[in-house]
Amino acid sequence: MIQYFKADPWKIIEDGFNPDMNEIAESIFSIGNGMMGQRANLEEDFTGKSLQGTYVGGVYYPDKTRVGWWKNGYPEYFAKVLNSTYWSGLNLFINGEIVDLSKVRIESFYRELDMFNGVLNRRSVINLKNGINVNIESTRFYSLVNKEYSALRYRFKTDRDCAIELTNNIDGNVVNKDSNYDESFWNEISQESRENEMLVAVKTKKLDWLLATACVSELLIDGETFSGQRINSTTRKFAQSKYSFDVKANQEVILVKHVITSSSFHHPEETVISHAQNAVNKMSASSFENHLEMSSKAWNAKWEMSDVTIQGDVSAQQALRYNIFQLHQTYCGDDPRLNIGPKGYTGEKYGGSTYWDTEAYCLPFFLVSSPSKISKQLLIYRYKQLDRAIENAAKLGFKNGAALYPMVTMNGEECHNEWEITFEEIHRNGAIAYAIYNYIQHTGDSGYLLEGGLEVLLGIARFWAQRVHWSERKQRYEMHGVTGPNEYENNVNNNWYTSYIAMWCLKYTKHCLQESQKLFPQIFGEIAKKTNLNVVEETKQWNHITENIYLPFDEEEQVFVQHDGFMEKELIPVNKLESENRPLNQKWSWDRILRSVYIKQADVLQGLYFFEDDFDMDTHQRNFNFYEPFTVHESSLSPCVHSILAAKIGNMGKAYEMYLRTARLDLDNYNNDTEDGLHITSMAGSYLSVVQGFGGLRVKEQTLHLNPVCPKEWESYSFKILIKNDPLEVKVDHDKTTIRNLGTKPVDIIIQEKQISVLPENTYSHQN
Amino acid sequence: MIQYFKADPWKIIEDGFNPDMNEIAESIFSIGNGMMGQRANLEEDFTGKSLQGTYVGGVYYPDKTRVGWWKNGYPEYFAKVLNSTYWSGLNLFINGEIVDLSKVRIESFYRELDMFNGVLNRRSVINLKNGINVNIESTRFYSLVNKEYSALRYRFKTDRDCAIELTNNIDGNVVNKDSNYDESFWNEISQESRENEMLVAVKTKKLDWLLATACVSELLIDGETFSGQRINSTTRKFAQSKYSFDVKANQEVILVKHVITSSSFHHPEETVISHAQNAVNKMSASSFENHLEMSSKAWNAKWEMSDVTIQGDVSAQQALRYNIFQLHQTYCGDDPRLNIGPKGYTGEKYGGSTYWDTEAYCLPFFLVSSPSKISKQLLIYRYKQLDRAIENAAKLGFKNGAALYPMVTMNGEECHNEWEITFEEIHRNGAIAYAIYNYIQHTGDSGYLLEGGLEVLLGIARFWAQRVHWSERKQRYEMHGVTGPNEYENNVNNNWYTSYIAMWCLKYTKHCLQESQKLFPQIFGEIAKKTNLNVVEETKQWNHITENIYLPFDEEEQVFVQHDGFMEKELIPVNKLESENRPLNQKWSWDRILRSVYIKQADVLQGLYFFEDDFDMDTHQRNFNFYEPFTVHESSLSPCVHSILAAKIGNMGKAYEMYLRTARLDLDNYNNDTEDGLHITSMAGSYLSVVQGFGGLRVKEQTLHLNPVCPKEWESYSFKILIKNDPLEVKVDHDKTTIRNLGTKPVDIIIQEKQISVLPENTYSHQN
Repeated sequence: MIQYFKADPWKIIEDGFNPDMNEIAESIFSIGNGMMGQRANLEEDFTGKSLQGTYVGGVYYPDKTRVGWWKNGYPEYFAKVLNSTYWSGLNLFINGEIVDLSKVRIESFYRELDMFNGVLNRRSVINLKNGINVNIESTRFYSLVNKEYSALRYRFKTDRDCAIELTNNIDGNVVNKDSNYDESFWNEISQESRENEMLVAVKTKKLDWLLATACVSELLIDGETFSGQRINSTTRKFAQSKYSFDVKANQEVILVKHVITSSSFHHPEETVISHAQNAVNKMSASSFENHLEMSSKAWNAKWEMSDVTIQGDVSAQQALRYNIFQLHQTYCGDDPRLNIGPKGYTGEKYGGSTYWDTEAYCLPFFLVSSPSKISKQLLIYRYKQLDRAIENAAKLGFKNGAALYPMVTMNGEECHNEWEITFEEIHRNGAIAYAIYNYIQHTGDSGYLLEGGLEVLLGIARFWAQRVHWSERKQRYEMHGVTGPNEYENNVNNNWYTSYIAMWCLKYTKHCLQESQKLFPQIFGEIAKKTNLNVVEETKQWNHITENIYLPFDEEEQVFVQHDGFMEKELIPVNKLESENRPLNQKWSWDRILRSVYIKQADVLQGLYFFEDDFDMDTHQRNFNFYEPFTVHESSLSPCVHSILAAKIGNMGKAYEMYLRTARLDLDNYNNDTEDGLHITSMAGSYLSVVQGFGGLRVKEQTLHLNPVCPKEWESYSFKILIKNDPLEVKVDHDKTTIRNLGTKPVDIIIQEKQISVLPENTYSHQN
Repeated sequence: MIQYFKADPWKIIEDGFNPDMNEIAESIFSIGNGMMGQRANLEEDFTGKSLQGTYVGGVYYPDKTRVGWWKNGYPEYFAKVLNSTYWSGLNLFINGEIVDLSKVRIESFYRELDMFNGVLNRRSVINLKNGINVNIESTRFYSLVNKEYSALRYRFKTDRDCAIELTNNIDGNVVNKDSNYDESFWNEISQESRENEMLVAVKTKKLDWLLATACVSELLIDGETFSGQRINSTTRKFAQSKYSFDVKANQEVILVKHVITSSSFHHPEETVISHAQNAVNKMSASSFENHLEMSSKAWNAKWEMSDVTIQGDVSAQQALRYNIFQLHQTYCGDDPRLNIGPKGYTGEKYGGSTYWDTEAYCLPFFLVSSPSKISKQLLIYRYKQLDRAIENAAKLGFKNGAALYPMVTMNGEECHNEWEITFEEIHRNGAIAYAIYNYIQHTGDSGYLLEGGLEVLLGIARFWAQRVHWSERKQRYEMHGVTGPNEYENNVNNNWYTSYIAMWCLKYTKHCLQESQKLFPQIFGEIAKKTNLNVVEETKQWNHITENIYLPFDEEEQVFVQHDGFMEKELIPVNKLESENRPLNQKWSWDRILRSVYIKQADVLQGLYFFEDDFDMDTHQRNFNFYEPFTVHESSLSPCVHSILAAKIGNMGKAYEMYLRTARLDLDNYNNDTEDGLHITSMAGSYLSVVQGFGGLRVKEQTLHLNPVCPKEWESYSFKILIKNDPLEVKVDHDKTTIRNLGTKPVDIIIQEKQISVLPENTYSHQN
C-alpha cells in the first residue's frame, strides 16, 4: 500500500510520472459512462508497461473454458469482457523523434480526474533527446449524455520551430490479456479513412457482435484548421490519418477526435456502421467543449443526488467520491441487459458482468443514491434471465421451474467453472430474492411483483425447496454441499447463512404470492398458470421446510454456527497469527486455508446484516464478537459489512478501522492488484459503510431510519440521498444531525427511535 | 457392453473387421514389454477412426496445466505420457491402389493376441477395387528379452500378377491426442535412410528427452532377398524406404522390421543414436523368428509363475489371463524409475505414471505372482522420490521432513490439479506406507527398512502428525478437509478410512523405528541423524494422536461412519434409484453426486480390507451390509474390494457378481471408454478377486493363509503363486483344495485355520 495519488476533495491527482505505476494509474484514471469505458492509456506511443483496454457494455466473448478436469454441469464457455477497438491513440514525431513517455525526459507531468465534471486531464512538459521541449495537454471524456460518444482533445506546442508528423489512429488490432494462447477475438469487417473521417468495423469470432468505431477529427494550428498534407491509409482492422507539417515555436497544435462507438448490441447489424458514421458526423458539428459542458452538467446533476461530504479528512472525502464516481461510471441503468462487472470498464479480470455483488452491495447504493428506475433495471436484468436460470437449474437436476441464477454471467448462462462455486455457492440465489424485497422496501413499488418479481421469487423458492433434503436421522431439513459467502470454506453442510436466506426466501415468496393473489387475483391467475403453480400444495411444503430447517446454533458460545464442524477447528484468532502468514491467499496453500478457521468475508454476519430485525442487539454483539476475530477480510467485499455491524453495536473503533480498509482499496492499491482494474462492486461498500454504518440509514416500508454517529476522526459528514425519488440531505457532526428536505414532499423519518416529519425545503435538527 | 471379442482360454480373438470397433481393438490388442509398448494400429494406411499410440517408459512431457482458477500449491505442469515415434507403419499400393482397410472390401479378417507367447497376429484377405485379392498376414511383438527391441513381420500375396509399391516408414510426426491446441511435443534432431537402415531421432521440446528409433528391414520375395529398386528418403522427423516391384500371383512378399528404440532415459544423450544403430544391427543379424522364440520363452516362464486357470468358464479364463498379461506387459520391475501408469502403454489418458493404484492394487498382484525383486522396485521408486514428496509437503506448509506423495506423478513432482484431490486425497500417503508393511509381510525382507523404507515411513508419519489438529471443543484429534477413496465426496471432515490409516501409519512407523533402533543401532543412528529424528519426542506426540484420534462410529447402525455428516444424508440404496440415473457420473451434476449418499468405490470397506485383522467378522458383515447397498462402483477399482470382502463374509453371490464387473471391464467395454486405452491398474483387481477373494489367500509374516471357495459357476480354478520366491500351485474345486509345492523349500500354510506344511514336489489335499 502506498499513497501515490494526491489528496483533493474532487480530483484524483498524479503529479509526476512513474513508469512503474503506469498500469495502476491506467486503472485509477479510467473513465466511462455506464455503457462503455476505457483505461487511461496514454494517447502517444508508450513502450513501458501498459494494459491497453477499451470496453463496450454487452459485447463479450465466450472463450473456451479452461479446466483441469471436467465435471458434469460445467459451462461450455467463459464469458470474457472484450478488449475493443482503441480509439484514443495517436503517434507523434517531432523532428523525427518519437514521443514516448518511457523514452524521453519528463520535466513535469500532471494528470487529474475531475470527478465533479467527469473528465480526464493531463498536462506534461517533456524534453526530447533532440533538445526540443514539448508541452502536451490532453482532455478526454465519455459523454454522459450521448452514450455512444467519446472525445479527445490533444494539444501541444514546442519551444522551437520543428517538423511534426502526427498520426491519428483507430485500431481494432487488440487482444485480451487473458485470451488463451493470445488468440484475437475480432475478425476484420471494414476500415476506411478519407478526409477527416475514419471508421473501423470488426466482428467477434463468436456470437457475431459487430462493432463500428467512427471518428471525425479536426486539426487546428494556432486556431486555424489544418490545410496541409494528410495521408489516409488503412490496414487490417486499422485506420489512420497522417499529418505532416512544420510548426513555429509556441504555435499551438490541437487535434480533436470525436468518436462514436456503436454495436449490434444496440442496433440491427445492418445499420451499425451507417449509424456510427451518421452519428459521428452529427456530433462533430458541435464543438468538443460544447459536448464536454453538456456531459459535465449531467455529472453535476448526479452529484446533486448522491454526493457524500466529509469535513476534516480530505483523503476520506476524495476516496468516497471516487467510489461513488466509479459506480456511476459503471452503471447508469440505461439498459436492462447491462449489469455491473466486477472490474466495470477498467479491466478484464474475472470476466462476466454479473455477480451477486450487484444485489448485495451495489443495489443498496443505487437505491438511495439514484432514481428508483435505475435500481429497477437491475431487477429487470434478472427477470429477463429467468428462463436461463431455470435451464441452469434443470441442468443440475432441479425440476418444476426451479431457478438457479448463475454465479457469473453475461447473458444469463453460467460461465464460472469451479464446482465448489458454480454448483455450491448458491446463496447468490437468496441475494437476488432479497434485492426484490429491498427494492420494494425502498420504493413501495410492489407492483413490480406482478411485472416479474413474483416469477423470479417463485423460481428461487422452488430451487430452495428442492435443494434441502429431509434427514431421517435428525428429523429435520438439512442443506449439504454448499459454499457460503466465506469462500475459504467449500462444500460444507448446513451453512447457517445459506440455510437462513433459503428459509427467508420461502417465507417471503409465500407472503408475496398470498398478497398478490388477494390483491390482484386476475394477474396472479395468469402468472400461476404460466408457472404451473399450485399455491396451496407448494406453500404447504415450504411451511414444512421453514418450520423444520436446521439452523446450526452453538449452545456454549450462544452464536450461530457458520457450518457443521466449524467449532471443531483450531480456534486461533487472526491477531495470534504471525504476520508472515498474511495474506493467507498468497502465503498458504488452499487446503490449509480451507482447514483453518479464517473467514474471507462476512458469512454469519452477512445474515445478521440482511436480516437484522430478526435478531436482538445481544445476538448481534455475540456473533460479531465471535466471528470478527477470525475474519481476514481478504475479499474486498468484507470490511463494509463488518463496519456497518460494528457501528450498529456501538464499536466505533472497529467500524472506522473497517471503513478505512474499504475506502481507499484501489487508490492506495491495498491488494496489490489495482493494475488489473478497479474493484468496482466493492466500492459500494465504502459508501454503505458511511451511509448505513455511521449514518445508520435504513429504509423500511419507505420510511427512513437514521442512527447517526460521527467518527471522532472527522469533524462532520453529510450525504444526499433520494427517498421516494425526492432528494434529502443529512448532515452529521458530533453534536447533532441536520436533515434538509430538498424535495417536494414531506418525509417521515425515525431518527434514533424518534419519529419526525420534515417538510419540503425545511431543515430539522436532532441532538445526537 | 458388448461381447465383441471371441472367447478362448489363451487368446483374444477378433474375427471379422468392424471399423467402428477399431479404436477399441487398438486398445485391446496393445502389446508391450514393461519398458515400452504400443496400441494395435494397423500397419497399412487406415483412414477410419484410429488413435495412434506408441509409448516409451519414462519419456514424458510436462505440458501446461489447464485450470480454470489457480490455487496456491497447484503444480506448474501436467505430465503427459508421450505419443512417440511410430515404428510399425507402412504403405502398400497394389497396381496403384492403396491398401486401406476402411476403403477396401474385407473378405476375412482375423486378429489374435497370443497371450501365452506375447505376440500379436493378424490374417486378412481383402478385395481391392481393381479386382485384385490380397492375402495379408502380420506378426509383431515387443521382446521380453531385449527391452529395446520390437519387430514386425508383414507378409502378403496377391491372386494375380501385379505391380507393388511398398514403403516402410519410421515416423516421428506424432502428436498427443490431449495436447493443448494440437501442439507437437517433439523437435526434429536427425533422420536417415540408407540401404536397409533407417533412423529417426527426435527430442522433446521440454526436458530434452532424446529418442532414437533405428530400423533394419529385410524384404523377401518368395524367400529371396529383394534386389530391385529402393528409394530412400527422409523428411522432417521421418524416414522412408520405398520399394517398387512386380509380383506374380501367389508370390509371397515378406517385410521384416527389426527396431530398436533407445532414449536418454536409459543412455547418456550423446550415445543414444549410436547405441540404437549398433543395437539394431546386432539384433538384425538374427532372425525375426529367433527373437520371437526367445521372447515367447520368457512369456512362458512368466505364466509358469503367475497363471490362473478356471475350469468351466472359458470367458472368465480368458479375461483373467488377459488382465495378468497386461499387468506384465506394463511392468516388469526393470527400472526403479518406472511405474504402472493407469493406461500403461495403451493410451494417454490421465497422464502421469503413478497413482496410489500401484500400492493398493498392483503391488499385491506382483507380490504373489512375481519374484520379490519386482515388488521391491516399486518401493524403491517411492524412496527415490522421497525428497520431492518432502518438497511437495513443504509447499503446502508442512515442516520437519513431512512427506506428502503426489496423487499423480512421473518423477515425484505432483502434477494433478484439482484441489480436492491434490491437496486432500491424502490417504494415498497411507497406501504407500502400507505397501512397505505388505512387502515385508510377504518377503520377510525387513532389511528394506534400513535401505529406505524407514525414511519413507518417517516422512509419511510426520505428515499425518501435522495434518491432524487438536479440537479443544471435542478434546480429540480431528482431520478436516480430506477426500477419501470415494471421490464422490470431497473436502469432508474425519473420513474414517483416512484417519484410520493415518493412525495405523503412526503406530507402524513407531514400531519400525523402535525395532530398527534395537536391532541395527548404528545404521539407525545414521538415519536418525540424516532425518533429524528425535524418536522419544516424536513418538510421544504420535502416541497422543493415536490414543485420541477421532474415528467416527455410529451407535445406531454399529458401523464406522464414512465421514462427518454421512448419516444425515438421504439414505436411499442404489437399487431404489431409477436406472435412468446411472451411471451417476454421466447423468448427474457434480454437486448432486456429492450431496448424495452414493459411493464411487470402497472407502470404509477399503479400511476393512487393509486392516482386516483389527476387526471381527461381525464388524465386517455390518459394515459391508451397510455400505455395499450405497456403492455404485463407478471406479474400475471398486468391485474387487467388494468381491474380496463379500467372499470373506461368505456372501458368494455378491462376490461373484462383483468379480464379473471387474474381470471383463475392458474386453467387454463396460465403461464405454476402452478406446482411450486399458484400465491397467484395475486389472490387478480381478486377479485379487480370484486369488484373495475366492482363494482367501493372505500372506502374513511370510505364512500363507488360504480360505478357498469355488464359485458355483465354475468347476474349479487354480492359481500359481510365489511364496518366498518359490512357486506353489493351489487348485480349488467344490470339494477340495489341492496344494502342490513346485519349489525347493517346505511351505507352511494355514488353510481354513488348519496349519499344514507342504514339502517340495509334494501335494496336499484339503477337504473344503
